[in-house]
Parts: sequence; structure tokens; C-alpha cells
Amino acid sequence: MAESVSERAKRVDSSGYAKPSGNGKLCEYIVIFGASGDLAFRKLLPAFYDLFVLKQLPTEFKILGVSRTDYTDASYREALVPALNEHSRLKSRQLEDFLEHVFYQSVNTSDSSEYALIKDRLAAFSQQSGNTKPGVLFYLATPPNLFGVIPECLAQHGLNTEENGYRRLVIEKPIGRDLASSLQLDDLLHRYFQEKQIFRIDHYLGKETVQNLLVFRFANGLFEPLWNRNFIDYVEITSAESLGVESRGGYYDQSGAMRDMFQNHLLQVLAMMAMEPPAQLKADAIRDEVAKLLESLKPLNTHSMHEDLILGQYTESVVRGKPQKAYRAEKGVNPVSRTETYVALKLGIQNSRWNGVSFYVRTGKRLPTRVTEAVIHFKQTPHPVFSHHAPANKLIIRIQPDEGIVIKFGLKKTGAGFDTEEVSMEFRYADLGELTISNAYERLLLDAVNGDATLFARSDAVHACWEFVQPILDYQQGEHSIYGYAAGTWGPKEAEMLLARDGRSWRFPCKNLTDTHFCEL
Amino acid sequence: MAESVSERAKRVDSSGYAKPSGNGKLCEYIVIFGASGDLAFRKLLPAFYDLFVLKQLPTEFKILGVSRTDYTDASYREALVPALNEHSRLKSRQLEDFLEHVFYQSVNTSDSSEYALIKDRLAAFSQQSGNTKPGVLFYLATPPNLFGVIPECLAQHGLNTEENGYRRLVIEKPIGRDLASSLQLDDLLHRYFQEKQIFRIDHYLGKETVQNLLVFRFANGLFEPLWNRNFIDYVEITSAESLGVESRGGYYDQSGAMRDMFQNHLLQVLAMMAMEPPAQLKADAIRDEVAKLLESLKPLNTHSMHEDLILGQYTESVVRGKPQKAYRAEKGVNPVSRTETYVALKLGIQNSRWNGVSFYVRTGKRLPTRVTEAVIHFKQTPHPVFSHHAPANKLIIRIQPDEGIVIKFGLKKTGAGFDTEEVSMEFRYADLGELTISNAYERLLLDAVNGDATLFARSDAVHACWEFVQPILDYQQGEHSIYGYAAGTWGPKEAEMLLARDGRSWRFPCKNLTDTHFCEL
Repeated sequence: MAESVSERAKRVDSSGYAKPSGNGKLCEYIVIFGASGDLAFRKLLPAFYDLFVLKQLPTEFKILGVSRTDYTDASYREALVPALNEHSRLKSRQLEDFLEHVFYQSVNTSDSSEYALIKDRLAAFSQQSGNTKPGVLFYLATPPNLFGVIPECLAQHGLNTEENGYRRLVIEKPIGRDLASSLQLDDLLHRYFQEKQIFRIDHYLGKETVQNLLVFRFANGLFEPLWNRNFIDYVEITSAESLGVESRGGYYDQSGAMRDMFQNHLLQVLAMMAMEPPAQLKADAIRDEVAKLLESLKPLNTHSMHEDLILGQYTESVVRGKPQKAYRAEKGVNPVSRTETYVALKLGIQNSRWNGVSFYVRTGKRLPTRVTEAVIHFKQTPHPVFSHHAPANKLIIRIQPDEGIVIKFGLKKTGAGFDTEEVSMEFRYADLGELTISNAYERLLLDAVNGDATLFARSDAVHACWEFVQPILDYQQGEHSIYGYAAGTWGPKEAEMLLARDGRSWRFPCKNLTDTHFCEL
Repeated sequence: MAESVSERAKRVDSSGYAKPSGNGKLCEYIVIFGASGDLAFRKLLPAFYDLFVLKQLPTEFKILGVSRTDYTDASYREALVPALNEHSRLKSRQLEDFLEHVFYQSVNTSDSSEYALIKDRLAAFSQQSGNTKPGVLFYLATPPNLFGVIPECLAQHGLNTEENGYRRLVIEKPIGRDLASSLQLDDLLHRYFQEKQIFRIDHYLGKETVQNLLVFRFANGLFEPLWNRNFIDYVEITSAESLGVESRGGYYDQSGAMRDMFQNHLLQVLAMMAMEPPAQLKADAIRDEVAKLLESLKPLNTHSMHEDLILGQYTESVVRGKPQKAYRAEKGVNPVSRTETYVALKLGIQNSRWNGVSFYVRTGKRLPTRVTEAVIHFKQTPHPVFSHHAPANKLIIRIQPDEGIVIKFGLKKTGAGFDTEEVSMEFRYADLGELTISNAYERLLLDAVNGDATLFARSDAVHACWEFVQPILDYQQGEHSIYGYAAGTWGPKEAEMLLARDGRSWRFPCKNLTDTHFCEL
């Protein structure tokens, strides 16, 4: 089923995937569908505002908010003020200047004829500035049921063709809810837009530490030679959330941890951790390797899922004296729901670099802390007089919060003899005082504006993720175990067993990069 | 000329080299020759005092100071008080308790008959405590011309035989002043003492970071696989002193940096950096590998010395507004002296692990700071799109001061693109708050008392060092260049060229482990 690399290479050539613009020709107009929604108010507009403050946007850029809500330019701007003040990272005082670039058009996005209004506004912008070939970015911050509708309507008004400047489509997850729906959505999108015009946001890929993985792995003579099955014993990837489903119970109960986190974010992080070096530092060369890695995941079957997959759901408990609801008691959740809020999976990669190395991946809600990190466990050294009783070396790559890198290794205990104790070295991005780590949305929006698709998920990678996950989704349709875990713990006991069976154990990650006492609460 | 490993193995067996005592049978009496001297007052007695405070010495231990000076037990103790108060590391208040263990015997150490006095005192100690088989450690803190005399005199009174408890001889450098005199001294020592009774102090080997090198190298899966010619580009070893010759001009002018630092300390540090893993963690297994490494040094010849050896001598200058004397103007130094106060040498190791890797070793007086460190320069990673412009990784092992380890590697610059910048991770021994790093003398004296010879130079290693250095000493007898360098600089320009010629440069080490700004003064 998986497409071969050479087949893909051909398709990539013929469909003309995006190349990073490089020479800085910038998009002028950004159309945000779903402009009255939460995502627009809390993330997108604040990120554009911060990019504006950082002088990263072209001087003539304009943002056109689009939704059903009955705003005018003026009332939309007014509505944005508190949101921008609250969610802007930089808290600059250039809000009025920024808002002069923001406009609004009320549109029933399900009604194709109303898209003429958008076309007219863009034409007016264009006429006003005298730019006859403005680039336009359409950002779909809408429910996924509109992902098919909007591109079609745009196409009906010729807003998909690039004769007069580029037209790009940015979409957010969920990109399908299984392999079939994802392929279907892709067909729909590709009916009107070329792959090179489509930017699929995975905000994990916008994180500095994730992007840095490639440099860290391939530019360092200290790490590059070790990054394979000869020297690595096993790998852990953890993405923990301390929150529950909050107000998203209705959506989440239809989705679950597998779709919400695992299929997209965690597999993308895994790909960056494990992929081969790309031929060039170009978007498609990098995305070729991401897709290739995802296609190399060892397919799951009923037997392996029975052995290696742990699904969990949080139960009520008391955390630091505060009672916590069970998942099934959350608003919008089916009281007999079997949706998983926790997934742990042991997986393998079938290639020369990784064959035989176990990757343990877990994610869950209502865990003790919010943290995303990868832990590389190195093999013991061969000589038993030294490795006996010595701690195995670990490399911890912290993706959030407190982004950084920790190495744990052994040194001689002071005094006579050669006994070993574990010590740590740490690098924290925050220590690079002079540099600001940009927020993931800022980074991704700017890349989309600049046409650099490196950090956006390409169609083939998305399909490879779904293809890997589909057997799990099928398995979940049948009889399967789902284990309870008390809210505020590190998941079901069975997930501990998953590693214990191999003589291993999960690291307890904690907010503070090196402090492992804090994390067990 | 070099003895083969199997030959040595045989000799080691027949002469019965020391094994670490293991079961903690402790020496009771320590006889210090040269008890009125600087070394005894500033180093040895303070170290024994600190070991006493740390309860590391047996309850019945006695120290007998021996020299020509006309002290009594009481007046010797009194004379020690200010020295112990000043030089004790722990500054405890147990001085009176400690001094009850200290005795004194005035002896003309060149007169064999007077050694009966020592024998009588030891017999009296023995009778008093009822211990008929006390161990005795003879510490030769004397000028080297007595190294031959004292063992012979001890032997004449039967103080070298071990029927009634062990008899150990501790000697300090210099152990010979060239290959011939070192072999001659060894013959003399071995006439009366077995190799297993002889403990040659190299106080560099007592340093925690030097001992730790073996654990660091062989117990860590992150470093062990990289420690060879495949991954290491080159190695620097620097031992810098900021002081000049001070009051030791007369001695130093006869010795020079090659004998004073290079032949012993630096080659021992090099051996610990580069040796193969020992078969066992036992004194002789480790010393077998040290000797083997030293015997693998690529022999120098006139051509290679002309190319790879830089000798320097400091000239007058002004450092931070303070005028500094030239070496030749120092007290006790020949005003036309050609003795080197600086050595830099590029050397090679002829074995499977290191062939082709350059080791650049330097030491000098009146350099900008006091520091001893080794720097491993790793090769660039193979893939040019990542390694191009990326900094080569470095591992810095700081031996003194501020003992610790620094890794310098590349991370992605924040923001778009894949540009790399160098960042650091650091481990400092001082951060292990709960542990005290013992002073090198304390460690070595305790090991000598306990009979653990691991950190003492064995005869074959000492000879291998001299054998390597002898061509340089011969070369120095003829016409050779000696380059001036202004006091307070990093040595002659020619030493820069030594690396520059290979497209490399010395690291500028500094007191602070990671701060490279501070060090250039």
C-alpha cells in the first residue's frame, strides 16, 4: 500500500511541490476563515500582531477576517483589542497601527455566491495599493466540515489560480479522522489546489526544539555517529497534558488521544527524531525523509496491538486536595464512553538505522504535568568492569516547556575506587538570553506567508500516519481493553508493565528539566 | 628498546608487584624524611591532619618526622602548629589530638649508623602499642640526591624487609633527570626494595578529574564509542602556570619545563586520556595499560623535533601594569640560560586507536592563567549540508582549577533556516555539593597507607616516559632554537604556527570553565 520513494519522487516532480521562496517575495493578503472563532482570537491574530511588531510582515499586508458573524471592519477591530492585549506575546504598544491592517467581511461560508464579496474586497485592496499580483493566503480556522466546502467555493470564483500572484491554503488539524476520510479530503483539496499550495499546520513542528532536532542530530560529531541501533538501546517519547478535556468534551469524545495527539503530533516528532538526513535543506527533501520514515513504521496487527498498545481513560481522583472529575463525568462526554484519554504504544521502525530498537510513545490527559520530551537511552559500554553498576547514559530532548537538552552520564564517585554515579549536564534555550524563541504559530504563519513548506505536513506523510494508525482505529471498533487511571497519575499500571516486561521503565518527566523529584507529585 | 607487554607481564609476575590491599589492613607508622622541609610543612603534614580529621587513618597511627634539624617531639609539634593551621584544607579544631600522633627524631640521613635511632623509635612505638608487626611507610620528602642513600641505610638496619609488617617507600619527583639516571636510580632502589614496595608520587594522578578519566571514557555509552581515530580529529593538552620560577630558579634552571612538567605529569595525563581499557580495575592491570600507551608514543627524531617541537623562554614584559622579570633575570638563573620555560609538542600514538590523530601538548610558566585541561576535538559530521559552517564539537576536560567537563556543540539558531551556533553544556565537580573533592596529596597518601598503587607511577611507565623524552634532551644539548615569549602571553608565536600549519588553533583556556572571553587578558 505504501508508495515507494521513487514513485513519490516522480509525483513530487510532476505536481511541482513548493520550494522555499528564499528571495523574500511576500504575501500581501491573508484571508482568515473562522475569524470570529477562538483560534483566530487567541492564536492567529495575536501571532500576526507579534510578527507585525517584529517587522516580519510586508508593509502592505492586509488581514481580511471572514465569518458569518455580523462585524464591520471597525467593530471587528474593537472586538480584537482585548484578545490581542491578552494573548500577544510581546505586549507591544503598536496595537492601533496593527489594526489598520485588519479588515472584516461577513460571509456565509457555505454559500458559494457570497464568496464574490471576498473577491471584491481583495480586488479593492489590490486597486488601492496598485499591486496587480498580490499573493493571498487563505487560512481555514474553521470546523473541519468546511475544509471541503471552502476550497470549492474559492475555486468557483477563481481564487485558487495563481496567474495573478500565489494562492495558498492553510488548514489546521484534524485532517481527516481516519485513513479513508483523510484520502477523501485530500482528493477534494487537490481537485482545486495543487499540493504545493496546501499548508497543513502541525503546531508541534513549529516548535524550535523540534526543528532543532535535525541540526542537533546531523551537525554534531558528538551525536551523529551514535544515532542508530548500534549505540541506542531504546527511545521514549512522552507528551503529557495536565488538563482534562475542559470545554471540548463533545469534540474530544468523538476523537480521543489517538486522533487528537498521537496520529499527528507524536508521529511527526518521532519522524524528526528518527528520519534519515535529507539530501538538501529544502522543504521537499526534508519532507521526503519524513514520509519515508513514517512509511517505515512496522505495521501493527491484532497480535502486536494486544501486546504493545495500552489505552486508558482517566477516573475520578483527588489531586492536591482537589477532587477531579472522571472523564466520563465531563461535560459533553458519553457517560459510558470508551474513548481513550491515554495511549501508550511500543513501536518499531523497519530500516537499517533502527531495526530492533523499541520506541515507546505515550500521550495522555490529566497526567501529573504538562510536558513533551524525547529520551534516548544509550546502550551500556561493552567492558563489564566499567559498565557494571554504571548508569546507562540518557539524552533528554525537552520540547516543552523549558525547552532544552539534558545529558545524563556517569562519573566516578569522589574518593577511592571506581564507583560511578549519575550526573547531568543541561542546556536550556532560555539561557541564550539574546535570542527570542518565537512562538510556534508565529513561526508557522511566517513560513506560510513566505512559502516555506518545510514545517508543514505533506500529503504523503499525513497518509502514512493514518495508514499506521488505521489498524488501531479498527481494533478500537471491536472488543478491546481500556484501562482506568486516576486523574493526576502517570497513566494505567499496564503502561508501566509495557516497559517493565522489557526490563525498562518510563522516565518521570517534570517541569524542571533536571529535577526528577518534583515530577512524581 | 621498549619492553614488550608479554615480557613485562613476566617480570611483573616474578617481582610480585603490589596488589591493592582491599581488606583494609592499615599502616601504623609513617616515617617522613625531610620532616623540617617545605614539602612536609606545607603539604604532607597538613594532608595527614586532614585525613585524621576525616577519620581515614587507623587509630594507632604514628608519624615520625626525621631530618637533621634539632627538634624534640615537643618543639617539632610546636613548629607545625602555624603550618597546619594555614595549610589544612578542613581547618578543623582537632590539632592537639592530631599532634599527639606526631613524633620527631633528629638524624643525619647520610650517616648509616644514625638509622639505629629510627629503628629504636619504631621498636618503642611497637612495644608501647603491643603491635609486633606494624606496617611502616618511609616517605622521602628529601632532595633527590638522598633517594639512593636512604634506601641503602634503611636496608642496613633491616628496615626494608617485610617479615614484621610491610615496609613501603614513597618517593617524589624528580625520578632521575634523564633515561640513564632514572634507570640507575631504579637499580639502586630495587637493590633493597621490591617494585611492589615503591610508590612513586605523581600528584597529577591524585587529582579527581584525572582518575575520573577512565570512568568517563569507559563507562559512558555516549562517549566510549567515539573515543578513537574514527571520530576524534585532534587532542590538545595544556598545563599552564601563571607563576614564574619564584624561589626555585636554581633548581629550575637545571631542570626546565621538559623535566619539571612534561616528562612526568603531562605524559601521565596523556596516558589516562588515551590508554586502552584495563583488563581489571586493579593497580597493575591499569598500570600495564599506562605503560603500554607510553611505549606506543611515536618516537621522535631530529627531523620531527625540528618540525613539531617548540621550546620557549619568557622575556620581560608588563602584565596588568606590573613589570615582570625575564626568566634570565630571575634569582638563581644563568643570565644566558637556554633552559626552556615553555614546551609545545605535536606527538602521535602508534596504535590501532590513535594512529593519525595529532596530540598537541603544551606547558609553560608565566602564561596568562593557571589551568590544566584536555580538549578533544571531534570530527565534523559527514553530511556537508549540516556540517558546513557548523562548529566542530569539543569536549573539554578541566583538571584544575574548577574541575569539570564542558561539551561544546551546535544548535540551530532560533528562527527560520538551519544556521548553527555553538552552545555549551557544563558539569562542574563543585556542583556535587554533598561530596568533597579530596586534595591530591590526601588521596595519594591514603592510597600509599592502604597499599593501593593504582595512582603511582610504575617503574616501566617512568622509563617509557624518559625513553620518549630522551631524544629531546639530547637535541637540547646541540644547536636548537629557543623562542622568547613575553611573560603573561600564551607562549611563542611559533607554538601558534605549530597548529596553524595544520589549519587548527589552540583553545584559549581560562579560569572559568566556559568563559572564553576572560582568558585572553
